[in-house]
Amino acid sequence: MNLTSGHRFRVTYELRGTASSVEEQARLLAVEQTIEFPPAFVDDVRILAEVVGQIETIRQVEGRVFHVVVGYAEETASGEFTQFLNVLFGNISLQEGIRIVGLDLSDVAVPWWKGPRFGVEGLRRRVGVPHRAMLCTAVKPMGLSAEAMGELAGQFALGGVDFVKDDHGLANQTFAPYRERWLRCLDGIHRANARTGRSCGFVANVTAPRHELEARAMLAKELGAAAVMVAPGIVGLDVLGHLSGLPGLDLPVVSHPAMLGALSSNPTHGIAHDVLFGTLNRLAGADAAIFPSFGGRFSPTKEICGSVAGACRSPGPLRACLPAPGGGIRIEQVREAVRFYGRDVVLLIGGDLHSGSAGIPQTCAAVVERLEDEYSGREN
Amino acid sequence: MNLTSGHRFRVTYELRGTASSVEEQARLLAVEQTIEFPPAFVDDVRILAEVVGQIETIRQVEGRVFHVVVGYAEETASGEFTQFLNVLFGNISLQEGIRIVGLDLSDVAVPWWKGPRFGVEGLRRRVGVPHRAMLCTAVKPMGLSAEAMGELAGQFALGGVDFVKDDHGLANQTFAPYRERWLRCLDGIHRANARTGRSCGFVANVTAPRHELEARAMLAKELGAAAVMVAPGIVGLDVLGHLSGLPGLDLPVVSHPAMLGALSSNPTHGIAHDVLFGTLNRLAGADAAIFPSFGGRFSPTKEICGSVAGACRSPGPLRACLPAPGGGIRIEQVREAVRFYGRDVVLLIGGDLHSGSAGIPQTCAAVVERLEDEYSGREN
Repeated sequence: MNLTSGHRFRVTYELRGTASSVEEQARLLAVEQTIEFPPAFVDDVRILAEVVGQIETIRQVEGRVFHVVVGYAEETASGEFTQFLNVLFGNISLQEGIRIVGLDLSDVAVPWWKGPRFGVEGLRRRVGVPHRAMLCTAVKPMGLSAEAMGELAGQFALGGVDFVKDDHGLANQTFAPYRERWLRCLDGIHRANARTGRSCGFVANVTAPRHELEARAMLAKELGAAAVMVAPGIVGLDVLGHLSGLPGLDLPVVSHPAMLGALSSNPTHGIAHDVLFGTLNRLAGADAAIFPSFGGRFSPTKEICGSVAGACRSPGPLRACLPAPGGGIRIEQVREAVRFYGRDVVLLIGGDLHSGSAGIPQTCAAVVERLEDEYSGREN
Repeated sequence: MNLTSGHRFRVTYELRGTASSVEEQARLLAVEQTIEFPPAFVDDVRILAEVVGQIETIRQVEGRVFHVVVGYAEETASGEFTQFLNVLFGNISLQEGIRIVGLDLSDVAVPWWKGPRFGVEGLRRRVGVPHRAMLCTAVKPMGLSAEAMGELAGQFALGGVDFVKDDHGLANQTFAPYRERWLRCLDGIHRANARTGRSCGFVANVTAPRHELEARAMLAKELGAAAVMVAPGIVGLDVLGHLSGLPGLDLPVVSHPAMLGALSSNPTHGIAHDVLFGTLNRLAGADAAIFPSFGGRFSPTKEICGSVAGACRSPGPLRACLPAPGGGIRIEQVREAVRFYGRDVVLLIGGDLHSGSAGIPQTCAAVVERLEDEYSGREN
């Protein structure tokens, strides 16, 4: 009798070395991520043939760089996103020179992922923007009072910003405790919406200690937030699907990349940007995925950014996840960014919306106008 | 009126460059981790003087390597471990060449950490081993039935192993679902304890999806586990203190390093081994911290391993966290390991306990005898 169904998920690891050293490393890796035990001591041959990860292909990409596809019996992940992550990269995270560059789940029979609940269309409906690229900004800096943040949120909304979010470092600081901050921000936004006729939405950061996170998300819902944001690098990727399915919450979930850079930033170890910020965020249940864009304070290339957006929106059985590039994008880069990412995107622009001499609402309005022009093809 | 109390926590970042490039990088870092906003646009000078991280010292360690101490107002962490982690390394994880090598919390007035609830003495009491180094092993390989795992657990306990734990990849696989596995393992251990008069304890892996983790921990308690284990790299460091304080659980919490290697394995980025596996595990609430040891399948030096053990047990207001080095330690290395780590340690030995021709109980008994000899100073 077989131990497993034969269905496998396949992970592509990038390894470095010679053909023979890579083969040996791959063999050790496939054992480490499954049975973590000397194969010579295993009595049941089915464990070796079915439970241990199987090296399916080894391909030399260039020089010392190889791509190794390891197939894991889907039963090793036990239908749980947490254990799935552990099989992908748990113990081998402690080694060096191993990078996940691909993930193929097409053969899995019992999915352990949830995928976006709302997706791009759901987010568009929330803010009444059916076609063009969207604009998101954050209330900051930390240290402002809740009242000042509410004022600021209202100015963004007056300018036509689609989403105003908590800066990801806003938690429950004495300067602006979350309840008061959310009340003020939502009030500012609702007043502005009443004037503009738009539907600017507020995104509440609910990254919080484990015993408070759900309650904070439910409060955000109760007060009128349009979405919740959480940093899975701090509280676990599994939180995305958890929030997405939390009874009564019924809000889109935005993933913030804080701490996730530990996995992505070393080019020869960890998890490639597209797999991490795109594929895994989307599988886990993020409706939108914030990631560092080219042209800002972080260092990814255009090619990397394109791959992330591609993984967020690639055709398939799951709803698309809205790519949300950010991290220092400037107003002068908006046109280039929209042309690069396409219209199914939400651009995160923070500090630069404060830079205009005309005032925040006017600066925001000019950016939104640019997004509309880009969609309609108007010259500007 | 000041925005903050003036109490700060201090983080030492290792940066690389020239004196002037490092100073510039440090300045940007201190902004990124707090206000994440162009200082030029900040109206309130108190935000610049109090909320933005303050560069306290920059010291050239050697050549292009500098240690920069940044002091953060304790209010930036808002009394929450999750936001504390975000201030330490959230957004800068997305950059390169920044490594946390020190953490000083001596000036913080309102602690956001919990620290170990049981600590070394608490763990010793659980298994009735007051003085010598302890021995822990894992039931594996994945793919064994719950019955076979129970049998194995009993053999370890017969041999005098102090803790038998779930292998960290054992979740809820069809081969051995957690409830059945725990029942069998605990049964095997209790029968053995009845014969030996010892108090071998079972450590249940409760790394699980968010909506099930607490229930799984409570079940482990109900069935008689001596401790629970969780991988904070997968579900967040905050889970350690959460489990430690979970009403009615009342069990020591063991931290497993799966996925945490993303933070530690790049020598020029992330968080140093001692800060991550020692200081942060301990602050978060781990009673024992598993980490990769020298001499096994992973690559840390003795110096690194010593620093981790040191951070786990350094004198201070918190209970010590039991260092639990593992990852391929062999029986022939036990003496060296104990002499290196000292007696307040639990050695994790997995596969090698299966290597003896005399059988598992006899092999384990020989290792435990060696630990006793090392403590009593007997020649052997």
